[in-house]
Amino acid sequence: MHTLEKISDQRLFAGRQIRYAHDSAVLNCRMQFSVYLPPQSEQQPVPALYWLSGLTCTDENFSAKSGAQRVAAELGLALVIPDTSPRGEGVPDDPEGAYDFGLGAGFYVNATQAPYQDHYQMYDYISRELPALAEADLPISTQRAIFGHSMGGHGALVMALREPYRYRSVSAFAPICNPVNCPWGRKALAGYLGNDESQWQDYDASMLLAKRKAAVPILVDQGDADQFLAEQLKPDTLQAAGTVSGSALELRMQPGYDHSYYFVATFIEEHLRFHARYLLP
Amino acid sequence: MHTLEKISDQRLFAGRQIRYAHDSAVLNCRMQFSVYLPPQSEQQPVPALYWLSGLTCTDENFSAKSGAQRVAAELGLALVIPDTSPRGEGVPDDPEGAYDFGLGAGFYVNATQAPYQDHYQMYDYISRELPALAEADLPISTQRAIFGHSMGGHGALVMALREPYRYRSVSAFAPICNPVNCPWGRKALAGYLGNDESQWQDYDASMLLAKRKAAVPILVDQGDADQFLAEQLKPDTLQAAGTVSGSALELRMQPGYDHSYYFVATFIEEHLRFHARYLLP
Repeated sequence: MHTLEKISDQRLFAGRQIRYAHDSAVLNCRMQFSVYLPPQSEQQPVPALYWLSGLTCTDENFSAKSGAQRVAAELGLALVIPDTSPRGEGVPDDPEGAYDFGLGAGFYVNATQAPYQDHYQMYDYISRELPALAEADLPISTQRAIFGHSMGGHGALVMALREPYRYRSVSAFAPICNPVNCPWGRKALAGYLGNDESQWQDYDASMLLAKRKAAVPILVDQGDADQFLAEQLKPDTLQAAGTVSGSALELRMQPGYDHSYYFVATFIEEHLRFHARYLLP
Repeated sequence: MHTLEKISDQRLFAGRQIRYAHDSAVLNCRMQFSVYLPPQSEQQPVPALYWLSGLTCTDENFSAKSGAQRVAAELGLALVIPDTSPRGEGVPDDPEGAYDFGLGAGFYVNATQAPYQDHYQMYDYISRELPALAEADLPISTQRAIFGHSMGGHGALVMALREPYRYRSVSAFAPICNPVNCPWGRKALAGYLGNDESQWQDYDASMLLAKRKAAVPILVDQGDADQFLAEQLKPDTLQAAGTVSGSALELRMQPGYDHSYYFVATFIEEHLRFHARYLLP
């Protein structure tokens, strides 16, 4: 078993915000992640909410800006907050250093294309290696839910739709709903998976949801003043897919909100309470 | 009257987080500040809480990390969040570019020493110019309270103790309580005010509080795991001064908390509710 190295440990809402480093066998590099352990975890293992961040983020953005820990402390839920890509020397970036591919932009897929396939295995890291590590060493249970923002909303939806037995519920803020059909998604999927678009379908939340009725409840919030709404996010496509499969998808358009963490902070409490309905006894 | 130029305007907790730029006559440079306007301000002017940030901060740290807007939206309070020093070309910095003097470290004093006195007039900017500007153009009333963190806690206490008629209440997180007697304070006061220490006393919260009973209620929170507690902050001295003058000071030591915004975020709700008792009818 790999060892978690503690980088920092800070008191927050009577619990602890901790940052760890560890060797990732799946990503073939050293990684960092953050976790919030609520006060209840001092008594017994608590359920864990996995948060997937968006483009350019690390584990720090959500940790500092969401305000989620206040509600997690009240409900007795842990937050596990990974990075958005492999990191470090030897991990290839976008050839031009673009913000929407490579470092900070792993898109939560298992890459098959050179030079990315040796490190960019974020799907397996998030769904397998990280929970195993965290559940072995931290006071969290195997009761999991998953949620995220933008690229991370895409990742959360894809993981919960593909392997619903891993999660009790899923939610997303302004997710990339139909990556095979938007510029961010097409660039990432072509770069990591190659030009054969048939290989992309298992990473498209709308295609997955249209194909099979979701086995977990889904909550999505989307700001209607989001600058990326029409070109990149396409929540209408997800809504249509949910209708086709008869899935339990609640998609809420939030008037006046943009794509920022101010939008996430506004509705994070409702997302935690949504997940608590399925995670807590 | 000067004009406020809107830099950004974002929906947050059903209100608006807005950033403005303006020419400051007092500071003799262009400045930025942020304001949170709660939904209630669409109906009528609301009371305003002025937040003073600590060393190295701008208006953005508190805006992004404190979570204060959630509670401000509930209570119907505006937040006014200024920068921590004058800025821009021509504004002199610390000769060695240190983090604890010059840019980002105005210490909320009116400088008398060259080359700082032409710009570093933060006491007058915060207590006079900024409220006049904000109250003229924004839906906020002249009912004010003031609070802050570290260097900003020092600034808030000093302003409320010197001119209590301007504020209904004051609070602070981990304030520099006795700047004439700690390294951060001695460096700043000598640099901005000169070596005659008799000129420093009016910027020392403990000396002000010992001299005269506070005319406004005071709340102070201090983490006992704060790395700056003993050398820089000295809350015991403030407590002693409050005892001497018989002032209404509540100083709370919070076990396990450090100096970071995680500490601020944990107790910000209690500070807003404290101020609301004096600001709201």
